[in-house]
Amino acid sequence: MTISMYQASVPVFIRMLNNLVAILEKAVAHAEAKKIDPAVFFSSRLYPDMFPLSRQVQIASDTAKGGAARLSGSEPPKYEDSETNFPELIARLHKTIAYLNTFKPEQIDGSEQRSITLKVRNDTLALSGIDFLLNRALPNLYFHVTTAYDILRHNGVEIGKKDYLGK
Amino acid sequence: MTISMYQASVPVFIRMLNNLVAILEKAVAHAEAKKIDPAVFFSSRLYPDMFPLSRQVQIASDTAKGGAARLSGSEPPKYEDSETNFPELIARLHKTIAYLNTFKPEQIDGSEQRSITLKVRNDTLALSGIDFLLNRALPNLYFHVTTAYDILRHNGVEIGKKDYLGK
Repeated sequence: MTISMYQASVPVFIRMLNNLVAILEKAVAHAEAKKIDPAVFFSSRLYPDMFPLSRQVQIASDTAKGGAARLSGSEPPKYEDSETNFPELIARLHKTIAYLNTFKPEQIDGSEQRSITLKVRNDTLALSGIDFLLNRALPNLYFHVTTAYDILRHNGVEIGKKDYLGK
Repeated sequence: MTISMYQASVPVFIRMLNNLVAILEKAVAHAEAKKIDPAVFFSSRLYPDMFPLSRQVQIASDTAKGGAARLSGSEPPKYEDSETNFPELIARLHKTIAYLNTFKPEQIDGSEQRSITLKVRNDTLALSGIDFLLNRALPNLYFHVTTAYDILRHNGVEIGKKDYLGK
């Protein structure tokens, strides 16, 4: 037995986006309990030239939907990045999860050697499916979920490793 | 073709620890250039009850060596957590990478269904090898590498996504 490309991608993406939903819901509850404007968290960032929380969540969504689409050889749906508050951000994650749930293992399995072309700034990168999944999509997804978590922790939201790892 | 347990673990761990070494080296260079005491970065944290940079790096090391050892059915070496400065922290990562390099694919491959028992606070968790790798070891490793990165970014160290993702 080994790991299939589907196993290592879609269910992992869904799991992390669900954990991110739960984290954002805790941020909303914390804001309400402490009478903090949730917009403060929404636009909070760790450094002036880092992306704010909202953008971290949008990129987590993009990484997951783009990851599954590219591995399957299809085009990911474009989302507008027009979210202005937590309910919209959470709705976007639910929409992304619903999209990920449409993938069947046979659409992704066998994509190990599929050539995947990425535009990264001014460069074009050609990667095998396995390299794309293990060394781009997964590290990127974890980066943006963790940074969203770190931004909220930095702002005093009471979340812990359990929320990040999920059940 | 599919992904082997080895492919999805040891080379990924090594890659991320090497990226973390490069990130820490940039922090040292930044401290020197800006005449900042590197100890400030070493003990910096994003929130009073979060771990400082040094501990994030130690846990990244533990997650990687513990991950490979558990998948192979062996005991990870214990490191003392006695690092007090950047050179020692970087040396610990090199030591961890050297340990990871001792693993051969056949020690890890086939561990998908190996039962792995984890002590998490007061709980004992029993996971299959695949569940342990995809839902504990990898998310944890990425969490601590990203949080180390976020702490340094938050302190103005000039690092970017490329440093995190590596080559």
